[in-house]
Amino acid sequence: MQTMNWQQTAPGVWKFTIGDPQDITPLSVMGTIPRTEEMQQLPQVEPPFPRDSIEIEDLGDYCMVSIPLNRTEKLYGTGLQLLRMNQRGRNRYLRVNSDPKQDTGETHAPVPFYISDLGYGVLVDTSRIVTMYCGSTMRQTEALNEDIRDRNTDKGWKATMVATRVEIKIPREGADVYLFGGPTLSDVVARYNLFCGGGTLPPKWGLGFWHRVPTLYTDGQVLEEAEQFRQHDMPCDVIGLEPGWHSQSYPVSYEWEKSRFPEPEQFVKALDQKGFRVNLWEHPYVTPKSELYEQLKPLSGSHSVWGGLAPDYSLPEAVELYTKQHEEQHVHIGVSGYKLDECDGSDLTNNSWMFPGHAQFPSGLDGEQMRQMYGLMFQKMTTDLFRSQNRRTYGLVRASNTGASSMPYVLYSDLYDHKQFIRGICSASFSGLLWTPEVRRARNAEDWVRRMQTVIFSPLAMLNAWGDGTKPWSFPEVEDTVRHYIKLRMRLLPYLYTAFATYREKGIPPFRAMPFVMTPSEIVAAEVLQAEAAEQTLNTTDGAYGKRKVREWDDQYMVGDALLVAPLVEGEYEREVLLPSGVWYGLESGVRYTGGSIIRIHCDLEHIPVFVKSGSVIPMMPALSHVPRQGTQVPLEIIHFGDEAGEGYVYDDDGETFDYEAGVCGVWQAKVTKQTDGSYKGQLTGPPNMPQAYSTVTWRLAQTRL
Amino acid sequence: MQTMNWQQTAPGVWKFTIGDPQDITPLSVMGTIPRTEEMQQLPQVEPPFPRDSIEIEDLGDYCMVSIPLNRTEKLYGTGLQLLRMNQRGRNRYLRVNSDPKQDTGETHAPVPFYISDLGYGVLVDTSRIVTMYCGSTMRQTEALNEDIRDRNTDKGWKATMVATRVEIKIPREGADVYLFGGPTLSDVVARYNLFCGGGTLPPKWGLGFWHRVPTLYTDGQVLEEAEQFRQHDMPCDVIGLEPGWHSQSYPVSYEWEKSRFPEPEQFVKALDQKGFRVNLWEHPYVTPKSELYEQLKPLSGSHSVWGGLAPDYSLPEAVELYTKQHEEQHVHIGVSGYKLDECDGSDLTNNSWMFPGHAQFPSGLDGEQMRQMYGLMFQKMTTDLFRSQNRRTYGLVRASNTGASSMPYVLYSDLYDHKQFIRGICSASFSGLLWTPEVRRARNAEDWVRRMQTVIFSPLAMLNAWGDGTKPWSFPEVEDTVRHYIKLRMRLLPYLYTAFATYREKGIPPFRAMPFVMTPSEIVAAEVLQAEAAEQTLNTTDGAYGKRKVREWDDQYMVGDALLVAPLVEGEYEREVLLPSGVWYGLESGVRYTGGSIIRIHCDLEHIPVFVKSGSVIPMMPALSHVPRQGTQVPLEIIHFGDEAGEGYVYDDDGETFDYEAGVCGVWQAKVTKQTDGSYKGQLTGPPNMPQAYSTVTWRLAQTRL
Repeated sequence: MQTMNWQQTAPGVWKFTIGDPQDITPLSVMGTIPRTEEMQQLPQVEPPFPRDSIEIEDLGDYCMVSIPLNRTEKLYGTGLQLLRMNQRGRNRYLRVNSDPKQDTGETHAPVPFYISDLGYGVLVDTSRIVTMYCGSTMRQTEALNEDIRDRNTDKGWKATMVATRVEIKIPREGADVYLFGGPTLSDVVARYNLFCGGGTLPPKWGLGFWHRVPTLYTDGQVLEEAEQFRQHDMPCDVIGLEPGWHSQSYPVSYEWEKSRFPEPEQFVKALDQKGFRVNLWEHPYVTPKSELYEQLKPLSGSHSVWGGLAPDYSLPEAVELYTKQHEEQHVHIGVSGYKLDECDGSDLTNNSWMFPGHAQFPSGLDGEQMRQMYGLMFQKMTTDLFRSQNRRTYGLVRASNTGASSMPYVLYSDLYDHKQFIRGICSASFSGLLWTPEVRRARNAEDWVRRMQTVIFSPLAMLNAWGDGTKPWSFPEVEDTVRHYIKLRMRLLPYLYTAFATYREKGIPPFRAMPFVMTPSEIVAAEVLQAEAAEQTLNTTDGAYGKRKVREWDDQYMVGDALLVAPLVEGEYEREVLLPSGVWYGLESGVRYTGGSIIRIHCDLEHIPVFVKSGSVIPMMPALSHVPRQGTQVPLEIIHFGDEAGEGYVYDDDGETFDYEAGVCGVWQAKVTKQTDGSYKGQLTGPPNMPQAYSTVTWRLAQTRL
Repeated sequence: MQTMNWQQTAPGVWKFTIGDPQDITPLSVMGTIPRTEEMQQLPQVEPPFPRDSIEIEDLGDYCMVSIPLNRTEKLYGTGLQLLRMNQRGRNRYLRVNSDPKQDTGETHAPVPFYISDLGYGVLVDTSRIVTMYCGSTMRQTEALNEDIRDRNTDKGWKATMVATRVEIKIPREGADVYLFGGPTLSDVVARYNLFCGGGTLPPKWGLGFWHRVPTLYTDGQVLEEAEQFRQHDMPCDVIGLEPGWHSQSYPVSYEWEKSRFPEPEQFVKALDQKGFRVNLWEHPYVTPKSELYEQLKPLSGSHSVWGGLAPDYSLPEAVELYTKQHEEQHVHIGVSGYKLDECDGSDLTNNSWMFPGHAQFPSGLDGEQMRQMYGLMFQKMTTDLFRSQNRRTYGLVRASNTGASSMPYVLYSDLYDHKQFIRGICSASFSGLLWTPEVRRARNAEDWVRRMQTVIFSPLAMLNAWGDGTKPWSFPEVEDTVRHYIKLRMRLLPYLYTAFATYREKGIPPFRAMPFVMTPSEIVAAEVLQAEAAEQTLNTTDGAYGKRKVREWDDQYMVGDALLVAPLVEGEYEREVLLPSGVWYGLESGVRYTGGSIIRIHCDLEHIPVFVKSGSVIPMMPALSHVPRQGTQVPLEIIHFGDEAGEGYVYDDDGETFDYEAGVCGVWQAKVTKQTDGSYKGQLTGPPNMPQAYSTVTWRLAQTRL
């Protein structure tokens, strides 16, 4: 039993160090600076257990940290978890894995950070794999006889019993362990995001619609397809190029294939004139055909991937080579960002292609460490590159880890289960991550529409047609519905952009799971209501671990403070929705619902169930074909819902640079008050001038629908 | 780079030691004594590479051993691998896993032993997890530019390139590494099995038909179901009881549930009188309700499973307690053996129920070590218990590891894919393991028949109805076919029993994959023949790693020396079969085939494709309702196939005790010679008396079918 050297490292964040941690960890790689001022504004509350009830056991090769749990507490986080949102009772083996098909905890983004619904979080900062036993292991001394059931005769038998401690396996070298205070789950996550430098604020264009073209498209084919978006009146801001733009891929050259893209600069400019940004796919492994190869060779790992180099980007010289080449050949000619693929391979998956855990790198890192942090390194390098040009970027990455909150990157996966993709939006919100349920293809028009409706209400609305050549109009019978929702996203841009500003300033994720807005007791209360209605008896403790299948509500989520999205998947035309307290309206139906309960709703294929809270004030703009460029002004429409006073906000800046960090930005309050005559009055208050992006303001008050 | 302390430990087996290996390893736990005399009779050949081309690299936490590979060699083994037979190009993470759904190498039986088709094998003896990178990792220095392909344009691109070394990750404490010589693959495996004490020789009754009854059956229901087997004229030798026989299960008591089995001894005797043996299901985790609990508690691990104890069976006191209780309450009253379940849990699977890898045991072993060896320990304890009564046992186990060749246990799984189940028979044969493709339920009558046909030609022919309550006659429309094959197995008993005797005496597995009987060049030659017939061009190197999907022939296998089985699964009525050189006959069709080629055959639902080699001599007996008891004699029928002289063997002993080890057994040669008049003559030569189990011999010569 070690003693703990507790220290407070930031407001509401306490840390102790085990062993002699490595210099290179996710937090050190990201070099983030906690936003202590903003953190100060959160209440300072210790976790609901005495710190000295945390135990540390040194087992030679590694340390076990053990932390108390009560019997009903739920545990969220541990990075992107597509297979479950509540990790209580599970072992989470937090290894980066490109193919996380089994519920082991392996994931594209293995953040060793869990958050309790009692309002505290535990983070381990290490470059190595951490295993978190989230109440899934029971010490013999803790086994309660009354919990033991006879599987022969007792239907209530469960494979995993209720254990009362989390056990965390800390790697050999030791690590810093951080404890994040609450009091609420939302406070814990906000504090984590602020600790990591605050959430990311994407450029406005990043929140438009994205389309990735088939991998072998030529410049002409890309321009033609871009033109088709305009002809079909389908808004689109970003065109993504896939491996085919490289002169060689798998391994990659980072150089334009001249036969398909003879004049890259003119190509990028031509798209820009149509209002499209260009995003380039790449991966880390450098082919001998690349001009970078010879210089990177001595700075690379012992093992090859596809015959290419795996450079060690913990080395400044390597970063410099990568950055210089990317600046000159991509960023300089106008490329807006990257899709960072294949940085998450696991040598345990079906594909044995990644460098192994025992690979050695010049910096002294091994393959395990490099793989756990590779995705972070690429996010950091590319973000710094764009920052050096005072340009914001927004892109995709397939691997991430601790400290990514401030990175302008969205996770994706080659997996494709729609329900898992929805859960991903919920799961990512606990660990400073963003996730896109990208659309690639569909079994039929219904599948197509449902996936499109979901991705529209996500951090990055993208059709990835790299392999299937699909277009938004691939299913003509539902083209209008798809157009309707792409345009709705465009109209919501002021609202979404403001939600991201809140992510940056307050650490509150723009897309977030239900536990952010409902306490455990509120959720249980709603479930009890429903159970009583169904004349079931419900003991909440048994309910949590007995035979009753507990709903985790991981298939619905909030967008900002005002909107609740409850997607449907192919084959579903009705579902249950957990509504927080208050009055809610169907955003497009106008139907009125009483919250604090579980409702059952029906919804046709033309719509996705979205609910808006009474009193909400939502800023919107016209559905343009693409996000207006810096300096262009559009009218602002502010919509107030329901029959009570309320307020909303409009954040604005130039939308493309980092000048907002120097204060070139503003937040305007849109306040709606009820007059004595029962009418409503809307008022926009804030900095002297109007938000610069907007020409006029029109108000729609006391609405029940869009 | 360490230097290696090579030493020869047995004929054709060389060893070097890395670091300071633990005392407790699979080989030490099994305490097997190499059968050096028999090993001497194998040719002594070194591997096809200089021993000093093996490299060892000390990486601090672990060692990497690296061994050369040529570009086309195939690697088999690494324990039971249900998802692929040839491991070349794959990472094998050899961790015991109860739910091996992904192709990571995790398995019920993670034997760190690979066998090259060039005729050598490499074994690591350790209690820990070993990772074998079977040509799946490429050092940067080995990457050949000419191998690099452009995925953009080259259809020949592959995720895994051709690497020319195996890399083996050896655990921290070090380990003994064994090199097994050939010259043939069959010699390597035979040598491994003899090194582990020789293959197991089951009691004769173990080779009959097995049936496991629904878990909550009472003694009366079991007797009634047993009786039904006799009424339906369905042979059956063993009735298996599932968890319900315990007074508590999950965790278990090892004590009879009095409400279902008030008089266990009478119950077992009653079954015995009908010619049935009783096999008992159990798992390792002891409930507080068991009389063993208090005594085992101080001898158990730090972590509980289902509230029960996980005893440390590396401690003699614990073994003694377990053995004494089992002897008194089970073996003493006539129980014939066990089904050892749940000894393979992985804390990474969907079910988080197993004690974790960091669990601590009184002996000093940790959870990782105990889990890797738990299945072995139970096999050893129970085998020793029966041996102490001079009785042979035969049973089932869900976890195994190195050194299990001499254990009378057959592996099974909760998975249920028929093709994987067939592959299991092939895969197990490389690593001293036996596997049963047990039948539980079926989608339809066709699925039912195909699964029954497969299990009949496996080491343990069993219907496991524990959860589904199925019977061999559950699908009346195919009952006759099922009966036909259960009876065929009974008729083949002398042949099967002799094949197991060869396993024990020569180390040749009774059921074995095609690489045992065909060299790489013979297989390629057959494939080339077919390719040429199909007017394809085939470059064997490209063939092995280029675009052509290479068949591994892991869906057919040999039973003894004479029979080749090529099962069909639901939906299949034809298939390709790779026939070794020589003339073959359809065992039941009598159709003549020329070997050394790939044939395409059609087969109705009433039959499974089985082929018999011309010149084979096969001993058979009548299809009794159960295997005759010690002392009972039955007529022996010897069948000679084809139009050439040949020979076969009949091994015999009392079938139930270990007296054969003292020489109370014999091998008779059944020789068929061609007379000058073209007729054939059969002669049984060997020890003075007839095999004791047989009353008369009748010969059927020059047959083309059964």
